[in-house]
Amino acid sequence: MPTYTPPLRDMAFVLHETLAIESSGVPGFEDMTPDFTAAILEEAGKIARDVLAPLNQVGDVEGCVLENGVVRTPTGFKAAFDMVRAGGWTGLDCDPEYGGQGMPYTLGAAVGEMHCAANMAFSMYAGLTHGAYSAIHAHGSEAQKRTYLPKMVSCDWTGTMNLTEPHCGTDLGLLRTKAVPQDDGSYAITGQKIFISAGEHDMAENIIHLVLAKIPGGPDGVKGISLFIVPKFLVHEDGSLGARNPLACGKLEEKMGIHGNATCVMNYDGATGYLIGDAHKGLRAMFTMMNEARIGVGLQGLSQAVIAYQNARDYALDRIQGRAVTGAAAPDKAADPLIVHPDVRRMLMDQKAFIEGGRMFSLWGASLIDAAHHGDAQADGLISLMTPVMKGFLTDKGYEMATQAQQVYGGHGYIEEWGMSQYVRDARIAMIYEGANGVQALDLVGRKLMADGGKPAMAFFEMIKTFIKENEGHEALAKDFLGPLKTASKDLQTAMMFFMQNGMKNPNAALAGSTDFLHLFGHVCLGYCWALMGKTAHAALAAAPSDPDFYENKIRTGRYYMSRLLPETGLRLARIQSGAEPVMDLPAEAF
Amino acid sequence: MPTYTPPLRDMAFVLHETLAIESSGVPGFEDMTPDFTAAILEEAGKIARDVLAPLNQVGDVEGCVLENGVVRTPTGFKAAFDMVRAGGWTGLDCDPEYGGQGMPYTLGAAVGEMHCAANMAFSMYAGLTHGAYSAIHAHGSEAQKRTYLPKMVSCDWTGTMNLTEPHCGTDLGLLRTKAVPQDDGSYAITGQKIFISAGEHDMAENIIHLVLAKIPGGPDGVKGISLFIVPKFLVHEDGSLGARNPLACGKLEEKMGIHGNATCVMNYDGATGYLIGDAHKGLRAMFTMMNEARIGVGLQGLSQAVIAYQNARDYALDRIQGRAVTGAAAPDKAADPLIVHPDVRRMLMDQKAFIEGGRMFSLWGASLIDAAHHGDAQADGLISLMTPVMKGFLTDKGYEMATQAQQVYGGHGYIEEWGMSQYVRDARIAMIYEGANGVQALDLVGRKLMADGGKPAMAFFEMIKTFIKENEGHEALAKDFLGPLKTASKDLQTAMMFFMQNGMKNPNAALAGSTDFLHLFGHVCLGYCWALMGKTAHAALAAAPSDPDFYENKIRTGRYYMSRLLPETGLRLARIQSGAEPVMDLPAEAF
Repeated sequence: MPTYTPPLRDMAFVLHETLAIESSGVPGFEDMTPDFTAAILEEAGKIARDVLAPLNQVGDVEGCVLENGVVRTPTGFKAAFDMVRAGGWTGLDCDPEYGGQGMPYTLGAAVGEMHCAANMAFSMYAGLTHGAYSAIHAHGSEAQKRTYLPKMVSCDWTGTMNLTEPHCGTDLGLLRTKAVPQDDGSYAITGQKIFISAGEHDMAENIIHLVLAKIPGGPDGVKGISLFIVPKFLVHEDGSLGARNPLACGKLEEKMGIHGNATCVMNYDGATGYLIGDAHKGLRAMFTMMNEARIGVGLQGLSQAVIAYQNARDYALDRIQGRAVTGAAAPDKAADPLIVHPDVRRMLMDQKAFIEGGRMFSLWGASLIDAAHHGDAQADGLISLMTPVMKGFLTDKGYEMATQAQQVYGGHGYIEEWGMSQYVRDARIAMIYEGANGVQALDLVGRKLMADGGKPAMAFFEMIKTFIKENEGHEALAKDFLGPLKTASKDLQTAMMFFMQNGMKNPNAALAGSTDFLHLFGHVCLGYCWALMGKTAHAALAAAPSDPDFYENKIRTGRYYMSRLLPETGLRLARIQSGAEPVMDLPAEAF
Repeated sequence: MPTYTPPLRDMAFVLHETLAIESSGVPGFEDMTPDFTAAILEEAGKIARDVLAPLNQVGDVEGCVLENGVVRTPTGFKAAFDMVRAGGWTGLDCDPEYGGQGMPYTLGAAVGEMHCAANMAFSMYAGLTHGAYSAIHAHGSEAQKRTYLPKMVSCDWTGTMNLTEPHCGTDLGLLRTKAVPQDDGSYAITGQKIFISAGEHDMAENIIHLVLAKIPGGPDGVKGISLFIVPKFLVHEDGSLGARNPLACGKLEEKMGIHGNATCVMNYDGATGYLIGDAHKGLRAMFTMMNEARIGVGLQGLSQAVIAYQNARDYALDRIQGRAVTGAAAPDKAADPLIVHPDVRRMLMDQKAFIEGGRMFSLWGASLIDAAHHGDAQADGLISLMTPVMKGFLTDKGYEMATQAQQVYGGHGYIEEWGMSQYVRDARIAMIYEGANGVQALDLVGRKLMADGGKPAMAFFEMIKTFIKENEGHEALAKDFLGPLKTASKDLQTAMMFFMQNGMKNPNAALAGSTDFLHLFGHVCLGYCWALMGKTAHAALAAAPSDPDFYENKIRTGRYYMSRLLPETGLRLARIQSGAEPVMDLPAEAF
């Protein structure tokens, strides 16, 4: 039976020792003392460990069941959801105006990593609701906010995002769902949406669907898309529930993973919908939700690596098999534990170095969102630039690391009972939804890199350059961390120059290297994070801490990242520099 | 519904145009004219396409069911197995002495790729039987061969390999299954074996289990292991079936994939077994089976990439979404097909370049086995060296490529109905069984590299060097193929030197880089294969062939491999050169 241990010590190291959030000047952070966050994260971690993790396999095995239009979630999900709700966790970083606790998003991200690691399918119900909350909060009318947000903050009502249709996902310009204006100012929504996570279930009184649709006569393509609130049950003025809206779950998809989450085909048959914001401006509102969702999905990728790693590590310490090549490590036993074998260690180190770097990356990114919410334009530019990286890199790597953790188990990893297969299967979707990772790469190279005249990208490089410059007097840091970071950062700049020099003539020259660029960027981000953490650890050690081992091992893990993982930037650059030709050369019919 | 197209043209290109097997001087090959192999492969391909592929999803969804000790295979499996049997496919490359068709193993490998691509779980029943056949053929007594082989060649009786026990897989020295000598010369086998593929099923009259066990009083560890034939039904002298042996399938494992294959817990309760070869020499006999099985598993990895690629390509040509960045490619449609997008092409090119290189690699390897069977010591050394590479590299990459093919489908890839998830899930096991890929890396670096005084490794480098030297006058070949191959091969040699210089002092310095070395080696093998194919294609084009497109596209695909995939060798080398420290530095308790 797999287990989960909340990484509280590591989160404290990132939040307080490295990011020093309480003194970072971001409003809302000043109260987040180490004791305060520790208390909250400890409670959140208990729920993850004791309530959500034990339901993870249950959710996978039972899945959701559709009967007579009603979706039954797996055994225990509803009780757990009630518990999460009762603890106020669903509104942790929501606006107090609507019943939220008003905590920073950064804290929500830390809690999110834990809840998602423990049970990804389960955590999506509240996660999607949060996304829908954000879209209404940012773009809804006052009346809409009063009507829907308090119930969504508490997750008495949950939310969904309805974008995809059978014939279109990425290319939303093609969508066909219609919104016909009614005399009372509402719209009649008709169409079919697919892949709707949490589209129907038995854990909430109401479900608030956010639906993209076209108002007939509007502009063609994405410029004619509007966003609507389409509640499962209509809501009376006094907030009580009214008639059932004509919308239904037509089918549950059989998926590779996240079986505990209901992935619905949703049919809208003249359902009453309410326009959010302006007509034909739906995509902008949807992107409020999407950007937040993308960071959330990046956290999902990371989180599945975390839980998979923890169990692989326990297995490697426990399972005895073979002898260390340098001589028996446990001569009193019939064999040595797996962890003596260098290749097993390599797999675990890959995971550990990715996870700790990725945790720093995601919490740093979350802190930028908080700063941006409080008007920091540079933070806004930076997180906007890094959002596709966070989504694409953390999910690609999360899947790879979950696969590698499964590998540590040998044959047992392939048997469902041991739980490792589920982490791989669950992690797989994170590379696909909220914009497949190729779309993230396109967003990064085709849009974000040159956004605002390239200012955020320049600021990113400047930030790294400054950090290196300010710290290169520190010998150990310079050798183990700053040198490799400099090389990697230079690779990234060279790649950007290549795009600028060649992408103008031939945009394919940039796009052919887009995924490589995203990974190159991701490695530089994690390399930078590791350099920051290395600095923190060195400084802590110099102050003779009570737990020197923690810092020494942090440095060891960081050195592993810098020496064995970061050099991937060179390969990525070489691929980028090979340009469009190898990728575009083959006629379509020759594939 | 996924489909499968036998890659007949490509196989002909490899077998006859590049390997030129019919004139290679290997006995048995001289009759394999292009027409002859084309006729056989076409028939084998039809079975794959029309009989096996349609059952692939059936097998995945239904799985195998254990009821009252009897395992029911999925609907249609038995009829298909009868058809494969009736066509003589199961004995294609078996000894005519026992009813086989006596064809080269190389042809069997080509058929194997197709049958496995179409239905991996199904193809394992005959595949394991073939492995058991080989072990008995090589190590059994005359009487044993007469008794078992004819029925196994025809697959009227199937075979299994029983190595793993709950507490040991890789470390067979720990095994506990006992073989107690009986007065009649047989042994009473008692113990539990796990992960026994095809351990029990309803498609054969009898199942011949090959079981590793210890004879009490024998040497400790792997030196005390013996191999036994333990039939499900005892066989009378006249060949008719006798009493049921006290052995049974106690449980079927719930696995991530290959659901159509019955993975059994096998309980032996004093079952009658017959020693194969000498007592305590079982491991050697088992390795006859294992080495063949490892190449077969490499083919499995390749094959899942093939079927996944074919369907992803079809989807990318058919599905319209978005517009080419360089302007509409299908202006008459609402959007362009996916294949116009550079990043979609990148994914498909990765797959195509791997598949065609991997096909050449596996058929070349198979031809070396044929040569080795006919006494060619150099071929034997070479294939022995490359076996772990073929297993490890082709399965790691096969899984990665299947995952990438799934990615082309976007959200649909995650839905079981589309079939892509199954290829990923099925491919996953190939990285684990028959020696997990980390064990392959250990075998390569710890054993094969220095085997026979390093002669095979030296011969490998010499072969590449000679090829480069002989062809560097060919300008296009030199620029696109030989240059990159030279660089990659040099990386491999540098890595080997690093191991030799550092591995003596500290074996961990070599083992920490073992997986990287395996991948480095795999890339050099595929780079060499691509260079060979590039040469063939250039030569063919010079002779004004009727289908110049085929050769031009072969060169384009090869250039992709050389410019975008082969440079991974540099990264692998950098990791290897980082040595043992980053991998071994962290105390076990700090993970």
